[in-house]
Amino acid sequence: MTQTVTWTRRHLLSLATFSPTEYDTVLQTAASFREVLTRRTKKVPALQGQVVANLFFEPSTRTRSSFELAAKRLSADTLNFAPGTSSLTKGETILDTANTYWAMGANIMVVRHRQAGVPQAIAQAMDQLQTGVRLLNAGDGQHAHPSQALLDLFTLCTQLDWEQPHCQLLQGKKIAIIGDILHSRVARSNLWSLVAAGADVHLAGPPTLLPVEFAAFSGVTLHWELSPAIADADFVMALRLQQERMSAHLLPSLREYRQQFGLTRDRLSVCQPTVKLLHPGPMNRGVEVSSELADAPDISLVPQQVTNGVAVRMALLYLLSNRGEQA
Amino acid sequence: MTQTVTWTRRHLLSLATFSPTEYDTVLQTAASFREVLTRRTKKVPALQGQVVANLFFEPSTRTRSSFELAAKRLSADTLNFAPGTSSLTKGETILDTANTYWAMGANIMVVRHRQAGVPQAIAQAMDQLQTGVRLLNAGDGQHAHPSQALLDLFTLCTQLDWEQPHCQLLQGKKIAIIGDILHSRVARSNLWSLVAAGADVHLAGPPTLLPVEFAAFSGVTLHWELSPAIADADFVMALRLQQERMSAHLLPSLREYRQQFGLTRDRLSVCQPTVKLLHPGPMNRGVEVSSELADAPDISLVPQQVTNGVAVRMALLYLLSNRGEQA
Amino acid sequence: MTQTVTWTRRHLLSLATFSPTEYDTVLQTAASFREVLTRRTKKVPALQGQVVANLFFEPSTRTRSSFELAAKRLSADTLNFAPGTSSLTKGETILDTANTYWAMGANIMVVRHRQAGVPQAIAQAMDQLQTGVRLLNAGDGQHAHPSQALLDLFTLCTQLDWEQPHCQLLQGKKIAIIGDILHSRVARSNLWSLVAAGADVHLAGPPTLLPVEFAAFSGVTLHWELSPAIADADFVMALRLQQERMSAHLLPSLREYRQQFGLTRDRLSVCQPTVKLLHPGPMNRGVEVSSELADAPDISLVPQQVTNGVAVRMALLYLLSNRGEQA
Repeated sequence: MTQTVTWTRRHLLSLATFSPTEYDTVLQTAASFREVLTRRTKKVPALQGQVVANLFFEPSTRTRSSFELAAKRLSADTLNFAPGTSSLTKGETILDTANTYWAMGANIMVVRHRQAGVPQAIAQAMDQLQTGVRLLNAGDGQHAHPSQALLDLFTLCTQLDWEQPHCQLLQGKKIAIIGDILHSRVARSNLWSLVAAGADVHLAGPPTLLPVEFAAFSGVTLHWELSPAIADADFVMALRLQQERMSAHLLPSLREYRQQFGLTRDRLSVCQPTVKLLHPGPMNRGVEVSSELADAPDISLVPQQVTNGVAVRMALLYLLSNRGEQA
Repeated sequence: MTQTVTWTRRHLLSLATFSPTEYDTVLQTAASFREVLTRRTKKVPALQGQVVANLFFEPSTRTRSSFELAAKRLSADTLNFAPGTSSLTKGETILDTANTYWAMGANIMVVRHRQAGVPQAIAQAMDQLQTGVRLLNAGDGQHAHPSQALLDLFTLCTQLDWEQPHCQLLQGKKIAIIGDILHSRVARSNLWSLVAAGADVHLAGPPTLLPVEFAAFSGVTLHWELSPAIADADFVMALRLQQERMSAHLLPSLREYRQQFGLTRDRLSVCQPTVKLLHPGPMNRGVEVSSELADAPDISLVPQQVTNGVAVRMALLYLLSNRGEQA
Repeated sequence: MTQTVTWTRRHLLSLATFSPTEYDTVLQTAASFREVLTRRTKKVPALQGQVVANLFFEPSTRTRSSFELAAKRLSADTLNFAPGTSSLTKGETILDTANTYWAMGANIMVVRHRQAGVPQAIAQAMDQLQTGVRLLNAGDGQHAHPSQALLDLFTLCTQLDWEQPHCQLLQGKKIAIIGDILHSRVARSNLWSLVAAGADVHLAGPPTLLPVEFAAFSGVTLHWELSPAIADADFVMALRLQQERMSAHLLPSLREYRQQFGLTRDRLSVCQPTVKLLHPGPMNRGVEVSSELADAPDISLVPQQVTNGVAVRMALLYLLSNRGEQA
């Protein structure tokens, strides 16, 4: 990590104000950490003695493990906050919890919460108290999940240039996002990065799950049917269909959803021959993606997304830590 | 840590028999670890290869995280016992659990339990088996919470002399403890240390929550009203009001409690102008402490208590480990 | 660890196909790690930078802690999968979970599952994908619990030769296993190793809990009564009696079980005078073993089993990691 990176952002809350330079800095830093992960001893001392607190008010083993491993590979100490056994049940506020972890010595807080805006509220409180604590949004309500979108971006760009991933590579590429756009913080965060990269973005889903205001983004097209969205697509991203949507009467039935929007190898034949599939996981096999397609090594980038997740999160922790500024 | 410390205690179960020298040893050792925590790399190899087992039969994210971080910063390995997923539900006794962790190689056990006396019972069993395991009581029933009282003591003394904290500094200082004294292991442990330090201790709370036998301590005065307890006080400690006291009919209502004993900036105007507030956390904002007071940086020592908690627990783990004797 | 070991096994799923050489390799490797555990600093860098993922779909604090500590003492990073807060509740398959941990970078997966065959299924999937991931069965249904049987074997053999434990030492030794054989993966795994070592194995339990097909093993004798099984025995292993067997009407009552098969110091008087007791834990004191016997230091090897568990699991992780092949 001898390269000079310019990075001034204190917190990573959303990609709404990300600049092309920032995207490229993340991509390049992740590429160098990806190299670390191929070594026999996959550790660097970059964050030795620093404390990363994973405050997952909404539980998530997958994302928490990814951040935890990223932190450990940077030699940081990690603390995991478990909501079930916490003081929150005793009436403590979220900000008091954050204050406690700051006072204990946390340098970076990775925050997930069911409610949009919580990571930002903690970040503001930490800034006001001049704590120097860095916030990383690991998913807040339906608002944002920036580290997921950045690992998706890294996965897309490294498909096009393994060694030198950068945003420009996606210029004009057709990328389809399929499913429950309305409730997806993953889709919202991906929109910012893909539009910034100049991609040709197509969203498709049932009308009840596809907010028309997304058509306001330049370069974004909406579809209520699958075929036009994925025709000639370079990449297709399937979103997870949350089964609780059914009880909210936003969807007629899983069967109907699968008939209209379920992705199969056959249906992807209208895409580019080199088309690749992404999915943020966990997958509902047989609903948004057929089980055969999910496991197809020639098409699915899902395992690569998970692997890249660790490298990208190492990059984010590294850049947000004050070491980033000194590099 | 090149200073010579004299420390012969095997376990830390209660402060009832603590000597002034022991208090000062803890304060001085904590002061040197506080210095470690200001370094960029906040780790020392003092307990490398040692195992600290956190046996929290009563869950507590806050205290467990503090001990876990203290152990990691001493380079110890940590094991966390999670009661929900444990063999206790399968009928294993508490002593069998402790024996198992000892046999696995735990050197220090940090024990919290809903029932008073459990840490002591484990300590006796460990001594009888000549295991060499050290016990640290992290809160047992309404009996004791010595590490909390020691971090409170450290916080009080460093207010008076940052570099050389020692007990004598509290001689004659007026310290008020407000709230549910009856059910508070924090108050009980603080009584021992504050009385030993020669402080002028005033307890105040509703008659149902204020045991008259505490008046037997020399230097302790009891009040059923707030004003005389905090008049001219140098320090005020608020205790957490457990809301379940209401259903036990020990309290008429939260509203009435707040009216009589709730601390506000206004009410503290009868104290010394330099008065500072302590609270063991988690706080019930708007009940025992107003939200404005809780966040007042000129009065509240709450964040400092949390920070000091890590340094004091590092000191305790260090002193209890057999390395303490050799230093 | 400079000795040359030959070890070709990729996964440890069951002991059914274990060779005498493999048993002896585990015993010798565990003996050298046991030596590490007597040092002041109980760590070796053997698995530095490697990731051990503990996937305990069935929760178990005891076994998980043992594997976690073994991994940490080999300097590996550990990830713990907590079923309660996992994607499994969101509909992800077990294989998807395993794929995710592999893609994140797990080198060894330690898997426990309520259902027999799950570790094997994951191992096959990992092999098919040529991931290089090593699987270690930490207990699957009523099928197998090989690391428990290997730590039992190590405990038995080191009783007979502390420095040079090897299988041959058990040749002709009478070993009784008492209790609920039917539901015990521990008993099943022990059968393979003890029969391979040439021990004279006697099983005893109520007819409903003693499968007659085990008589097919050469060197195994079945009993419906306690006395003939333990007469002149060198070692007696008590199994845990799962209390839920009662509701399944496989047992008349705990009291009757205790009267017929409960082990006491008195009853063991028919054994060899040097008889030793083993139990996989957690114990039901007063049911399968009297409390006095459980705590008798001259007879009980239970604490030693737990201690050996860490050394044996260090050996297994070491041998399964690709470092084993290079040593």
